[in-house]
Amino acid sequence: MSRTHVIGIDLGGSHVAASVVAGDGTVVSTAHASIDRTRPARALIEEDIAGTVRAAIATAGMPAADIGAVGMGLPGNIDRARGICRFSPNFGWRDVAVGPALEEALGRPVLLLNDVRSHTLGELHFGAGRGLASFAMFAIGTGIGGGLVVGGRLIEGAHSAGGELGHITADPHGPPCGCGSHGCVEAMASGPAIVRMAREQVSAGRGAAAVALAGGVDALTPAWVAKAATAGDADAREIYDRAGRALGVAVAAVLTSVDPERVLIGGGVGQAGELLLAPLRDEALKRARMIAPAVTPIVEAALGEQAGIIGAAALALESMGALTPALWSCEPVPHRS
Amino acid sequence: MSRTHVIGIDLGGSHVAASVVAGDGTVVSTAHASIDRTRPARALIEEDIAGTVRAAIATAGMPAADIGAVGMGLPGNIDRARGICRFSPNFGWRDVAVGPALEEALGRPVLLLNDVRSHTLGELHFGAGRGLASFAMFAIGTGIGGGLVVGGRLIEGAHSAGGELGHITADPHGPPCGCGSHGCVEAMASGPAIVRMAREQVSAGRGAAAVALAGGVDALTPAWVAKAATAGDADAREIYDRAGRALGVAVAAVLTSVDPERVLIGGGVGQAGELLLAPLRDEALKRARMIAPAVTPIVEAALGEQAGIIGAAALALESMGALTPALWSCEPVPHRS
Repeated sequence: MSRTHVIGIDLGGSHVAASVVAGDGTVVSTAHASIDRTRPARALIEEDIAGTVRAAIATAGMPAADIGAVGMGLPGNIDRARGICRFSPNFGWRDVAVGPALEEALGRPVLLLNDVRSHTLGELHFGAGRGLASFAMFAIGTGIGGGLVVGGRLIEGAHSAGGELGHITADPHGPPCGCGSHGCVEAMASGPAIVRMAREQVSAGRGAAAVALAGGVDALTPAWVAKAATAGDADAREIYDRAGRALGVAVAAVLTSVDPERVLIGGGVGQAGELLLAPLRDEALKRARMIAPAVTPIVEAALGEQAGIIGAAALALESMGALTPALWSCEPVPHRS
Repeated sequence: MSRTHVIGIDLGGSHVAASVVAGDGTVVSTAHASIDRTRPARALIEEDIAGTVRAAIATAGMPAADIGAVGMGLPGNIDRARGICRFSPNFGWRDVAVGPALEEALGRPVLLLNDVRSHTLGELHFGAGRGLASFAMFAIGTGIGGGLVVGGRLIEGAHSAGGELGHITADPHGPPCGCGSHGCVEAMASGPAIVRMAREQVSAGRGAAAVALAGGVDALTPAWVAKAATAGDADAREIYDRAGRALGVAVAAVLTSVDPERVLIGGGVGQAGELLLAPLRDEALKRARMIAPAVTPIVEAALGEQAGIIGAAALALESMGALTPALWSCEPVPHRS
């Protein structure tokens, strides 16, 4: 019974998590580590990441020979075929051969994917997207990432940039975005955008409830604002209303272009639930009348924080033939003559 | 050599065109007729449309037995499987069984598709989208329609609304749109939007060059404004600049979500060429930096006014097995286990 399991890795800007995952998506064991993203890539890969993988295998108490392949989701633009991270602002990487380096360290095939596409792949194979021919995923956290599934497969795009839903313009006159544009939905509804709005309220002599809960302006987080809003504070509710409506504009753009069966909202900020989803649905309904989003469910994603790990594991399982491949790439299309 | 040809029909709000088309997409003959869209659907279908088809066959000088199937593109939301037009604002139709009625009149299988999805299918099989795995099509005329191709197939969407790119929000505070929303790109860059901007200039004591060319305010059309702009008039150029930038916001939304290999700009207004494409590309570049649209060609579509007819013919050819089917629908996905 060798090669029955895979490794799923979720690499973030300050943290890496690795799990041993079974063929049905069950997480057997997980190891975590804090990382210093300014370390040289080689050391980060060979020591921090590979070390976390070994710790997960040790915790699972299974022979390393049972592991068939390794999948990793990481923030950035990925050349999947060559296992190269073309560009990652988080790590300051350009054309880093992450896949080959990790393969050398672990002695197993390594597959890479953008982190939020990995979340989406997890939801597709084992989560709220299971059995759907099409859905859109918005993962709302420090940034806003996404993924689009059409015909049962994740759209990779011609430049591996399919699903960058956080950079849909929600308001062309909106605040500057890290990407260089203005009014991207990421600049108006991500965690940092929510904190920025809360601080702007404080500067205007408002938003006291969230500050009181957080214990100070510097301690404000989206979760404290959500807590204040849930307790009925009008200022905090206004912030989630604005974020939800910005998201509604971007969701409507997806409804009117791709018309998916379902829209999934995930990520840390997405856990605010109806606080965010109610204004989001209302705005999307106003802006996508031709599509009647009233009939397109806009719901929370299923896998929570494990989505990235499970999606990365799914990628590894696909490579072993244990799951049907579910990625659209820009390869020649087999079904056309 | 019977059943070698098909019929392609392009039904518009005031006009119907039908062609006999060969298996390689060559148009053999075309017949046109003006229509009164307020006539009862049955009379319009059995007399005007079927009559135009018979005229095209007569002009081609071939036996009716050579025609294998009939494809028709029409404005509205289509239930393709049942041949029903669910809703067409242009004709005031709700749940009209266009396909069965036309089948009865012509004695051939009839396939229906939304008109702009039909344009896109034409470009996919026989035009500027040939051989591409993915592209987006914006058809800019009285309205703005579109189509998205991924994995070599046209996205139909879960509610037959995939590709409604004209209703992507370009500015949430923009002018009202016929769909009930505000600031849809259709409300900011379609033919009527260009005429509205030209009239607003006149009200403000500007835009004299286009009015002089048109011979009066009431005779203003997008083509006259384009002519004034090409002659160097700053007011007219400003109108195309604004329309192009609104389109750029919508194109950027598609670049950051679907990341297609190419973007095609078609339709009557699209024929303004660089006047529209230059500001469009500039704005899309600013708004989709992550995707580097500098490397995603944004170019004119190839089939011009014949796109609709050729796309409808392609749909008929697909149904006969003469072309590989190129539509994604929400049917069960065969490649998933």
